[in-house]
Amino acid sequence: MKTIDSVEQIQDMARGAVFLGTGGGGDPYIGELFVTRQLNEGKRPVIINADELADDAFVLSVAGIGAPTVLIEHLVSATTLQRIVAAAERHFGRRIDALISAEIGGANSMFPLALGAIAGLPVIDADGMGRAFPHIEMTTFSVYGCKATPALLLDDSGNVVMIETVDDRTAEDVARAVCAALGSMIYGALYPMSGKQAKDFAVHGTLTQTLEIGRCIRQAREGSDDAVRALVSHLHRPDQGRHARQLFEGKIQDVRHETRDGWHWGTCRIADAAGGTDEFVVEIQNEFLVARRNGKSVTIVPDLISIVDRESAEPLTAEMLAYGQRVAVIGYGAAEIMRRPECLAVFGPALFGINEPFVPLETYTAT
Amino acid sequence: MKTIDSVEQIQDMARGAVFLGTGGGGDPYIGELFVTRQLNEGKRPVIINADELADDAFVLSVAGIGAPTVLIEHLVSATTLQRIVAAAERHFGRRIDALISAEIGGANSMFPLALGAIAGLPVIDADGMGRAFPHIEMTTFSVYGCKATPALLLDDSGNVVMIETVDDRTAEDVARAVCAALGSMIYGALYPMSGKQAKDFAVHGTLTQTLEIGRCIRQAREGSDDAVRALVSHLHRPDQGRHARQLFEGKIQDVRHETRDGWHWGTCRIADAAGGTDEFVVEIQNEFLVARRNGKSVTIVPDLISIVDRESAEPLTAEMLAYGQRVAVIGYGAAEIMRRPECLAVFGPALFGINEPFVPLETYTAT
Repeated sequence: MKTIDSVEQIQDMARGAVFLGTGGGGDPYIGELFVTRQLNEGKRPVIINADELADDAFVLSVAGIGAPTVLIEHLVSATTLQRIVAAAERHFGRRIDALISAEIGGANSMFPLALGAIAGLPVIDADGMGRAFPHIEMTTFSVYGCKATPALLLDDSGNVVMIETVDDRTAEDVARAVCAALGSMIYGALYPMSGKQAKDFAVHGTLTQTLEIGRCIRQAREGSDDAVRALVSHLHRPDQGRHARQLFEGKIQDVRHETRDGWHWGTCRIADAAGGTDEFVVEIQNEFLVARRNGKSVTIVPDLISIVDRESAEPLTAEMLAYGQRVAVIGYGAAEIMRRPECLAVFGPALFGINEPFVPLETYTAT
Repeated sequence: MKTIDSVEQIQDMARGAVFLGTGGGGDPYIGELFVTRQLNEGKRPVIINADELADDAFVLSVAGIGAPTVLIEHLVSATTLQRIVAAAERHFGRRIDALISAEIGGANSMFPLALGAIAGLPVIDADGMGRAFPHIEMTTFSVYGCKATPALLLDDSGNVVMIETVDDRTAEDVARAVCAALGSMIYGALYPMSGKQAKDFAVHGTLTQTLEIGRCIRQAREGSDDAVRALVSHLHRPDQGRHARQLFEGKIQDVRHETRDGWHWGTCRIADAAGGTDEFVVEIQNEFLVARRNGKSVTIVPDLISIVDRESAEPLTAEMLAYGQRVAVIGYGAAEIMRRPECLAVFGPALFGINEPFVPLETYTAT
């Protein structure tokens, strides 16, 4: 168990969450402000490991669902957060023992911390994606049979919708439709699970990961070190089965964005800043999905691709990319659980229309 | 209490429901087939008056929600109907005592009869619209404070959505969105109410009305009478506060349809068949909303406008109108409850963007 007790920690976590968002997942800035306010009021988020829970504990995932752009204009209200807890405990007929994030990448990393601080509920150091994904069903929870529904969806006005769907893909469709009908921003209490399910099915240690990534970047800047190099070196832990490498470094030459079928599609081309002729391309579909050097894949989903500012190692979301930026592209191997065949069947390359098999980043030939 | 025990009665009711649908409400044909099958299996719909119920009885409205075109291709399954009852009794924690139609015009007239026959539940001889309207909130139930939610929405695949919204207009938006996400046809169990509320807030006698309208048309045809004249004469009961008149008779000269903002908009122009120069126009917005003779309104929503075949008096939906048809247009004054100011504030002309006050059909000067 650890208590988050400084604004610096929250800022580190928010920055780390953008990194794990791999270009998507929304900006955690509003969440960061909100948790900061809780800290200033003496309410501290408490993080626990899943194994601190009883097997029959009741764990619930909470998430904001909707356009990140709406979230930004839409401050989360404490009243609404408390209504989520009350409505969920009423609906499920039992007290919530702990919260868990469905998606550690981006805005939804902060949401359980905010709710946990207000409601006095611990947040498990884990999530269901280990990164950001665009759909509700793209979680290890769902892969291993822990269903997203029954789920509650609420908005700030007092509307409540309970959904119980035959599969989690339908839950995604219905939640998205309800979100649009209620003004593009709702809160979900979903993936009701037992302590045992949280232990067995989650991607573990990911809240700590956000904290450590953010801290690493901050400390490197404070020490005037090469922040990108420090970050890659922090992430690269082959002894723990996690691999990281800098994939490329250069100047953004071209960014194309398109919103189509409810997705943010795009391509980012980066030119070698040192005058080389290599062409580096990152394909975007909400998140950064595949990175190719001279047409050859070097990292592919669910492995993580993050684009950071070359100097400050500030992680950039897809919307922040602009012509002329000097950036580094970092590949970061996904957690072991995410790379299993049953998981690749739910969030591997094929699910994004990429006609290539998943290849772990560390087995691509270094180029 | 009366029992529907012949296919002829069901056919009469379906025809009457199209008349009360005033051009909208969907085609009750599938419902008619379904109820006919129940009759053939010995299951008979039972119709009761609201005053046969105890004040604390539990009454629920059931309706199909979605595109009528989808309904037509989508036979209602008995299993799904039984799931609606089971899910509703589980959710509301009590046995349903009676069903009530939310909308008597069109397809939703048959739906409670089908469910009632299967589940052995009586159907109240009343509804919430006395006609067809395009939105869930356009009911006398809603006007008098009986909320549409908590409501259950279900589909044939086993998905269940419970909605509890701050107002019935939001319930409409959410239900419509859920419907689209689940494939354009869902079933709703909505407007949970007490026996007392059903007695006080419903438009009464409307199931009997469908039966009698259909019977009147059938018998006139069988007797080779002028079916249109017989129908108008049947409907015109000033002693009971209900007025009807034939507004026009002629040949359809022009029909324009447009689907915009989720509505079916249109205009139907009818020329005087006897060679007169009068121009008669019916404005369509899902239903027939206002009829004008030489630019002057002669019937306006919520009073009913129905277009029927000139020879057979077959009621026509907006989709059935075509160039060259010989038709009669009938105006039928709405029930007294529908014309009250509080009702006009929810489904009067202004709600459809018509910048004219409601004028009861019988007070328009005959022209």
